[in-house]
Amino acid sequence: MSKVVDLNCDMGESFGNYKIGQDNEIIKYITSSNISCGFHAGDPNVMSYTVKLAKENNVAIGAHPGFPDLQGFGRRKMDIPPEEIKNLITYQIGALQAIAKAEGMSLQHVKPHGALYNMIANDKNLGQAVVEAILKINKDLILVALAKSKIINIALKLGLRVAREGFADRAYNSDGTLVKRSIVGSVISEAELIDKRVIKMVEQQKVETVDGKTIDLQIDTICLHGDNKNVVNVIKAIRNILTEKNVKIAPLKYFIS
Amino acid sequence: MSKVVDLNCDMGESFGNYKIGQDNEIIKYITSSNISCGFHAGDPNVMSYTVKLAKENNVAIGAHPGFPDLQGFGRRKMDIPPEEIKNLITYQIGALQAIAKAEGMSLQHVKPHGALYNMIANDKNLGQAVVEAILKINKDLILVALAKSKIINIALKLGLRVAREGFADRAYNSDGTLVKRSIVGSVISEAELIDKRVIKMVEQQKVETVDGKTIDLQIDTICLHGDNKNVVNVIKAIRNILTEKNVKIAPLKYFIS
Amino acid sequence: MSKVVDLNCDMGESFGNYKIGQDNEIIKYITSSNISCGFHAGDPNVMSYTVKLAKENNVAIGAHPGFPDLQGFGRRKMDIPPEEIKNLITYQIGALQAIAKAEGMSLQHVKPHGALYNMIANDKNLGQAVVEAILKINKDLILVALAKSKIINIALKLGLRVAREGFADRAYNSDGTLVKRSIVGSVISEAELIDKRVIKMVEQQKVETVDGKTIDLQIDTICLHGDNKNVVNVIKAIRNILTEKNVKIAPLKYFIS
Amino acid sequence: MSKVVDLNCDMGESFGNYKIGQDNEIIKYITSSNISCGFHAGDPNVMSYTVKLAKENNVAIGAHPGFPDLQGFGRRKMDIPPEEIKNLITYQIGALQAIAKAEGMSLQHVKPHGALYNMIANDKNLGQAVVEAILKINKDLILVALAKSKIINIALKLGLRVAREGFADRAYNSDGTLVKRSIVGSVISEAELIDKRVIKMVEQQKVETVDGKTIDLQIDTICLHGDNKNVVNVIKAIRNILTEKNVKIAPLKYFIS
Repeated sequence: MSKVVDLNCDMGESFGNYKIGQDNEIIKYITSSNISCGFHAGDPNVMSYTVKLAKENNVAIGAHPGFPDLQGFGRRKMDIPPEEIKNLITYQIGALQAIAKAEGMSLQHVKPHGALYNMIANDKNLGQAVVEAILKINKDLILVALAKSKIINIALKLGLRVAREGFADRAYNSDGTLVKRSIVGSVISEAELIDKRVIKMVEQQKVETVDGKTIDLQIDTICLHGDNKNVVNVIKAIRNILTEKNVKIAPLKYFIS
Repeated sequence: MSKVVDLNCDMGESFGNYKIGQDNEIIKYITSSNISCGFHAGDPNVMSYTVKLAKENNVAIGAHPGFPDLQGFGRRKMDIPPEEIKNLITYQIGALQAIAKAEGMSLQHVKPHGALYNMIANDKNLGQAVVEAILKINKDLILVALAKSKIINIALKLGLRVAREGFADRAYNSDGTLVKRSIVGSVISEAELIDKRVIKMVEQQKVETVDGKTIDLQIDTICLHGDNKNVVNVIKAIRNILTEKNVKIAPLKYFIS
Repeated sequence: MSKVVDLNCDMGESFGNYKIGQDNEIIKYITSSNISCGFHAGDPNVMSYTVKLAKENNVAIGAHPGFPDLQGFGRRKMDIPPEEIKNLITYQIGALQAIAKAEGMSLQHVKPHGALYNMIANDKNLGQAVVEAILKINKDLILVALAKSKIINIALKLGLRVAREGFADRAYNSDGTLVKRSIVGSVISEAELIDKRVIKMVEQQKVETVDGKTIDLQIDTICLHGDNKNVVNVIKAIRNILTEKNVKIAPLKYFIS
Repeated sequence: MSKVVDLNCDMGESFGNYKIGQDNEIIKYITSSNISCGFHAGDPNVMSYTVKLAKENNVAIGAHPGFPDLQGFGRRKMDIPPEEIKNLITYQIGALQAIAKAEGMSLQHVKPHGALYNMIANDKNLGQAVVEAILKINKDLILVALAKSKIINIALKLGLRVAREGFADRAYNSDGTLVKRSIVGSVISEAELIDKRVIKMVEQQKVETVDGKTIDLQIDTICLHGDNKNVVNVIKAIRNILTEKNVKIAPLKYFIS
């Protein structure tokens, strides 16, 4: 692992009257925020609020596009062909881009959400569609992708920068994919265990899988989830660990080339 | 009236499996297309298709944002405060802008839709919100606004170009507002009557109102509606009339200053 | 006021991944639950869960239909004609009725939500549409309506039972309507003030209005809102007050005739 | 095949301003109508209209519940667990049931739509969930299911009547499932070919599959699709064929036991 790492968190997941997350607290401790774009979560007002919040806290912003499935929070697979994936990604990135511009901000990265994130990770056609869509909007954007996934090379070949993402609070299969949320044990909430995993990722560039193996995992950014009630303490602890290990914490745009 | 006029039509109003309008035919005869942005009509796939269609036919494109009300087709008033109007306009324009950019196109104008169009026409707070939102996205965009409405001066004062719009196929109240769609006679479908109204707008810069009066009406662009089954013939006839009267037909960007 | 009163609360307002309210606690202290039906809040899974919760706690259930506006939580006025109001009410009541039947429950009442509740209270056409819709589904249902509103007499004339509702935690205008939520002071959260208002409603059948007047207000049911963080304590206090005053607390079906 | 058959068609697929189908014509020639329930198509107003239309034409009505995916028209697979499938089916049937009751009608059958129809046909858990949900609402309802599919026996064992459905205008795989709509040739539109297939189903109780085989297919009801522009002529021709072969045409409720 490089001596610098980004800390990212999904933000702006509230919708209308429905408020979720602890954005106002979490924003203080991360370097990149993934802002929902109104399909699986978020709405134009929440997006505008979240962009302002990121600006005030000097946190980089990225689009967090997902499937058009508010009820399923974008976590249900949808059988959508590559051409339509392109369009729904482009739509959502564009929407956030304009809201960001209204606040004098520009997007640093794109991180697809939930089922979309997982589906594009290792599907060549879908992965290429996403990369091409991003390149057409702005070729300076950085794609945040699952470490070890096939989309990384697709993006690099086509000329799109990529940040490899590791999940401190999610269990891994031995092929580097995430254990599905519907499976017990897929989400890790104990702070100590999360810390240990971060140390292993940072020091050894490895992660322990759900079946007890250890696999290589090179990462540029660590994702924490706001639906962990203890997330603020978890992030603070991770910051301490990284500082102790002399790892710098900075937004992707300062070190991804 | 100027010696040049734009012909605009709402396009891209299909949604998923629901196909409406005669876009493929109408596009041949207009100079500006107002493309729905997914809230009251349209979806990312329809938007992409419509942008390509406009490009092929050398027709200028604009965003046609509306209320988040697919069932009501954006024609039902919604009580939304100015700050939220800003956000929903910005979101929709941004979404179309990105889809346009993917095809190498850029937006010429913004024309709010339906109930939103009517509500902002003469409400100072809402009007200002819309103008400010557009200016923040791109101050070169042109706002298409109801001729004689208050938002025209709001826009001009704030530095946004405006195109004054006349409706050949909608009945007018004597204050220059449109007769509500729910009232019988609000939509004019007879080709001959539409022609006469266009001639009057062009030659005399006037329009006859629903109560028999005649009012001044200076216009830069004429709107035709695709839900008139006879619309293609109507537009062809209007083109002939305008040509006979030595009025040029061109997209707004070539003559609005 | 009668010697018996019902305590009602809106329930089942969660949606997909979005959890709101304190239903599991509140349900222990109320006698009637108003269950959202999927238009302004709730979804089929939440509805099923809430029906089971009410059954376990021996609480009566009612439909809480609203406008099709999840983002606005049904609190934005929508310009919908009476015939369409009928259809959207019928649809939502029917949906909940089937979900209730699957659990061996049946509906006690119907209480329209938010902007719909307020719009039908004193609009003769809309009020009649709602009453007729309910009668066609099941003439034994009870309509929960704003105390002093015109819909009460419309319902009684057409043969539908009505429960008159008072709001312990909402400010009143002097005509008996509720102060709009967008106005500061419209929602009362201080437990002591709520208690005083309940006592006044119970003992004197009166309520103090936002402009300092006192108006008559006969009520059959008192509404508490789950979005008050302190609501559980508030309801417990109200139960104590009512018990002290020898007022019985029971579901509407046991005393509305 | 029995000497009697039902002719069914999906109806009420319009939504808000979007009008599709030729319901007013088709209704004259069918015996059972499958009415969309607002999730993949239809809305409360369209449902009410369609129920009235069926009543006037003496056509039986059934619920046509689908996935919550208007943009995909319920044709995209969604990964929804059995318990949630139960709830969304119950919700939709209940909604239509109430709208039907308002017109003095009651439901004859339930036919799930699109991807839901195909997913439940041969998945034991999903199939059982659907059957149980229907039984709890009204055990006299008839399930319309893909002929040869596993859900037929599940329903019969649990005590729910079933009508076996054949598709005159859809290509079959050799296992009796339908060829996916995304595959070329999956939808048959030539009237003559449709006629031949109906004759084969009626006389021989067989159908030719997409790979040239012939399989057994016992059916109680034949489905025609309203999105075939020529559907009215197709249905008329089928009626003639059936009459020539001395096959009675009647709604399911008159002959399914």
